[in-house]
Amino acid sequence: MTVTALTGISQLVTNDPVHEYAEASSGPLGVVLDAAVVMDGDRVRWTGSATRLPSGVDQVVDLGGRAVVPGFVDSHNHLAFAGDRSDEFAARMAGESYSAGGIRSTVAHTRAASDTDLARSVRRLAGEALRQGTTTIESKSGYGLSVDDERRSLEAVRTVTTESTFLGAHVVPAEFAGRADDYVALVMGEMLDACAPLSRWIDVFCDVGAFDVDQTRAILTAGMAAGLTPRLHAGQLAPGGGIQLAVELGAASADHVTYASDEDVEALAGSTTVATLLPGAEFSTRAVYPDARRLLAAGATVALAADCNPGSSYTTSLPFCIAVAVRDMRMTPAEALWSATAGGAAALRRTDVGRLAVGAAADLIVLDAPSYVHLAYRPGVPLVEAVWRGGERVSGRAF
Amino acid sequence: MTVTALTGISQLVTNDPVHEYAEASSGPLGVVLDAAVVMDGDRVRWTGSATRLPSGVDQVVDLGGRAVVPGFVDSHNHLAFAGDRSDEFAARMAGESYSAGGIRSTVAHTRAASDTDLARSVRRLAGEALRQGTTTIESKSGYGLSVDDERRSLEAVRTVTTESTFLGAHVVPAEFAGRADDYVALVMGEMLDACAPLSRWIDVFCDVGAFDVDQTRAILTAGMAAGLTPRLHAGQLAPGGGIQLAVELGAASADHVTYASDEDVEALAGSTTVATLLPGAEFSTRAVYPDARRLLAAGATVALAADCNPGSSYTTSLPFCIAVAVRDMRMTPAEALWSATAGGAAALRRTDVGRLAVGAAADLIVLDAPSYVHLAYRPGVPLVEAVWRGGERVSGRAF
Repeated sequence: MTVTALTGISQLVTNDPVHEYAEASSGPLGVVLDAAVVMDGDRVRWTGSATRLPSGVDQVVDLGGRAVVPGFVDSHNHLAFAGDRSDEFAARMAGESYSAGGIRSTVAHTRAASDTDLARSVRRLAGEALRQGTTTIESKSGYGLSVDDERRSLEAVRTVTTESTFLGAHVVPAEFAGRADDYVALVMGEMLDACAPLSRWIDVFCDVGAFDVDQTRAILTAGMAAGLTPRLHAGQLAPGGGIQLAVELGAASADHVTYASDEDVEALAGSTTVATLLPGAEFSTRAVYPDARRLLAAGATVALAADCNPGSSYTTSLPFCIAVAVRDMRMTPAEALWSATAGGAAALRRTDVGRLAVGAAADLIVLDAPSYVHLAYRPGVPLVEAVWRGGERVSGRAF
Repeated sequence: MTVTALTGISQLVTNDPVHEYAEASSGPLGVVLDAAVVMDGDRVRWTGSATRLPSGVDQVVDLGGRAVVPGFVDSHNHLAFAGDRSDEFAARMAGESYSAGGIRSTVAHTRAASDTDLARSVRRLAGEALRQGTTTIESKSGYGLSVDDERRSLEAVRTVTTESTFLGAHVVPAEFAGRADDYVALVMGEMLDACAPLSRWIDVFCDVGAFDVDQTRAILTAGMAAGLTPRLHAGQLAPGGGIQLAVELGAASADHVTYASDEDVEALAGSTTVATLLPGAEFSTRAVYPDARRLLAAGATVALAADCNPGSSYTTSLPFCIAVAVRDMRMTPAEALWSATAGGAAALRRTDVGRLAVGAAADLIVLDAPSYVHLAYRPGVPLVEAVWRGGERVSGRAF
């Protein structure tokens, strides 16, 4: 296997707070200045000060004074869909409010799409995300809402990631109107049987207009019995019991957390359940942002994710989410970067990604900037100049 | 000269409201569906429905069902500088407030930079803007603040654009502290003499901490006597008389307009002075956004520009500014696109750019999207897939 050194790194974010070469003031980011990274095959073999570069390197790539950060770990997306809701978006920007009901429009298009088209859509969006630095991506089903269409959606997701999430309980489909409990039974039964082999995670949209706490508990419990690990949408549109249910069930993550009581925040802080914030959704629905500072002050683990979906957040850009999290959720640039990398990894219960430590995946981003702060300081500018995943350059320039 | 047809355009924004093929509902954007554009050398020869493509075309490029919009006209930037203020940005995001004083830090770096470094910085940012669709860019001086350094700054600007603006009156430099009137005299005298031959425009930062209305009037009047056309920064940080002064002097544009009285809005609406809004500045200083809806309702002409500068808005991305203008300034996607193209052209008193009409410059953007709405619907996503300027593809894929 080729051993490659990346040198000329003005600033390296390792997310290793006890890195021997880290700036003392850099805290959880473990920032090393004038750094190098050595990759052995698909893994990180060494990181540190460029002056201490070890021997045994086959190839050196000089990055010319750029910042390097871990690849983004985007733990919340809905990539398996067909159709476009730009008209709904334009109407919303002209004053109409967001409701979960628009999901049904995407369901109709998704059901009509071929397997090939679904897989192509997933690959297109995952590729777009990769070019913007997302080296680990999660995606849910949830626009099929029938046994066959949920299964097809997850098969499409599996063409790009093993972080696949069964979200049969996204909304109650139109044909089950007035019979929500029948739909819940289908999700917990035949649909789960078909989808569990294709999934790592099970998710429920626990919110007004979608599923209540009792329905959510029943579905997630059934998923756990089938070997899946729970995560859930909670507190996007209204307060409710979803966040505390997430903690009760040991979910990996409670996602959105826009409406959270003091008890909700306390429960998250005392748990291993990550609070995953999705500022793209508040941006694109013109909703109030979650209170990141309250969560951070309480000691909760916070992740940032894109929530790419055609209704409420049609972005794949974690740089954009970082900039908005800093501006509108008052996270520091350091907190936002950590949440989009190590935070996302925590939300997926992964220790091999989200950091550039010895033995971790060689997934990293070269920025067209001397510092990671530029991700927020230069909003909207495509700063992701190159991306390495598993030790190989998969996007951007060769240097 | 080669005659090239671009076909396979799902949606063409012409900014020609009376285009014979335009959708009746598309208003000022003059949107043609299933369209084609014919370019003859550096000019638009024809636009219309693809089924009516005229003969005499040498070369056809099929865009495969993408939207095409006019190249962005970015009428307000500060590209001639050296140094980086990411530390100041991070401190501001942690709670410190913005003041114009930080400009002096950039002045020190700019004065220390060589001519070559200044020109390189301008070219780097103009190139970055071009790849994001900006085919016409304005840039000011204003970080030199001495006769020689302002002249050098404008020479650097002229390497990328003829839309060059003399902004000697950006702030009073430290060496003139307590002697603002002496500095005003220098700007109006020797500095103007050195800079006027390199400039089309003259600008003043008329605001608290910078220059007052009387100083501003004196400087702009002197500039007009030297053959320059006025534009000015007004109402960014506090209310003041700058906006009405802009109208009084027949300025091409009053820029920022965040703080505007009813009389200010009325004056703009009754004039040919464009209100240029710079949402990147409010985004990056966490300030309140200007009230675009009030300006539009009054009938003012509104432009959107990036205000690229290292202190308050270090973005070159008009797609980002459009997304923020829609989300946070409640412009519709159509209004925001118009303002970033035709509005910018109005702010530069140009009729040859900002629209795709017969005889206009063949400056256009191919979007990786079926509709221009995606510029706001897909925030942060690099949707600018290719850029043509003067009839030549200058960025992006070849199709």
